Amino acid sequence: MEILFATSNKHKFEEAKSFFGNARPALKLTHQPFDYSEIRSDNVEEIAKDAAAAAYKQFKKPLFVEDSGLFINSLNDFPGTFSAWTMKKIGNIGILRLMSDSTDRTAKFVSCIAYHDGKKISTFIGTCEGSIAIKISGVDGFGYDPIFIPQGEQKTFAQSIQLKNKLSHRYKVLLKFCEYLHD
Amino acid sequence: MEILFATSNKHKFEEAKSFFGNARPALKLTHQPFDYSEIRSDNVEEIAKDAAAAAYKQFKKPLFVEDSGLFINSLNDFPGTFSAWTMKKIGNIGILRLMSDSTDRTAKFVSCIAYHDGKKISTFIGTCEGSIAIKISGVDGFGYDPIFIPQGEQKTFAQSIQLKNKLSHRYKVLLKFCEYLHD
Repeated sequence: MEILFATSNKHKFEEAKSFFGNARPALKLTHQPFDYSEIRSDNVEEIAKDAAAAAYKQFKKPLFVEDSGLFINSLNDFPGTFSAWTMKKIGNIGILRLMSDSTDRTAKFVSCIAYHDGKKISTFIGTCEGSIAIKISGVDGFGYDPIFIPQGEQKTFAQSIQLKNKLSHRYKVLLKFCEYLHD
Repeated sequence: MEILFATSNKHKFEEAKSFFGNARPALKLTHQPFDYSEIRSDNVEEIAKDAAAAAYKQFKKPLFVEDSGLFINSLNDFPGTFSAWTMKKIGNIGILRLMSDSTDRTAKFVSCIAYHDGKKISTFIGTCEGSIAIKISGVDGFGYDPIFIPQGEQKTFAQSIQLKNKLSHRYKVLLKFCEYLHD
């Protein structure tokens, strides 16, 4: 079986490739950069569905897309579905500055995979609860990994890629997607 | 002549109504709330054009829409075209926190009106250069007015609505639009 992962984020593709390499070696994961004008929505599932439909129009083969975001409670769910854009503009430093007075540091990562099998779109959600660290720590991963500590742990995702690979929203959503493909 | 201003921001409608009341009393400005899924773009003109096309489909009469944003130099043009969304999430307090270390406080407001006359879309741009204040001051206006000081002035837009009505990006773009309608 061959599935296309349509994404312009090479980190996301690498994570998925490594996941399927272990979990489903028979599945051939291919990659196509995919840039399109995303809809504005506060909901990752809505965005992912729209993106999957647009990607299928372009590539005309079974494919999936992934949309994810970091939702910080004390910042009214900022940066949410605008996480990639916010990262480019203000970075992790910006997030820590915004939270300089925040006693509530809880946050969650949410990821949605939308899979277009040629006939219909199916969606899968993965969530990882955690908190925003006081400072930037670690060099692994990408994006907000250096400031995100999963619930019950002491290290950021960027300090422990093993932790990330086991607990992350993306790992969880890939697992659900993989189980679905297997059925 | 009657023109519809399609906007969900009542402050924007009030500003436009007051402007046309003085500048073109013969023009009848009407108002319809207009919510639609804006495209993601860093360009106010691109967004306004798309919105005007969508609004015309809905209302089927001559109309204009307006899109604007605050572009802060030291924050890589954040919050830009996501200004309204950012205001809801982190507010003026958030912007000041992000700039706690910024020596460069220059910023500009940019506004674009897109006018659909039934046949074609024309766009108009108004810009107001200025800087971000050290603290929130004033109660007039809305949005980022309490932290925006126009170039060469000492007060924020929210401290002097007279200043805002004379210098703002929205005043300038309405002036251009009004001249165009007059031709």
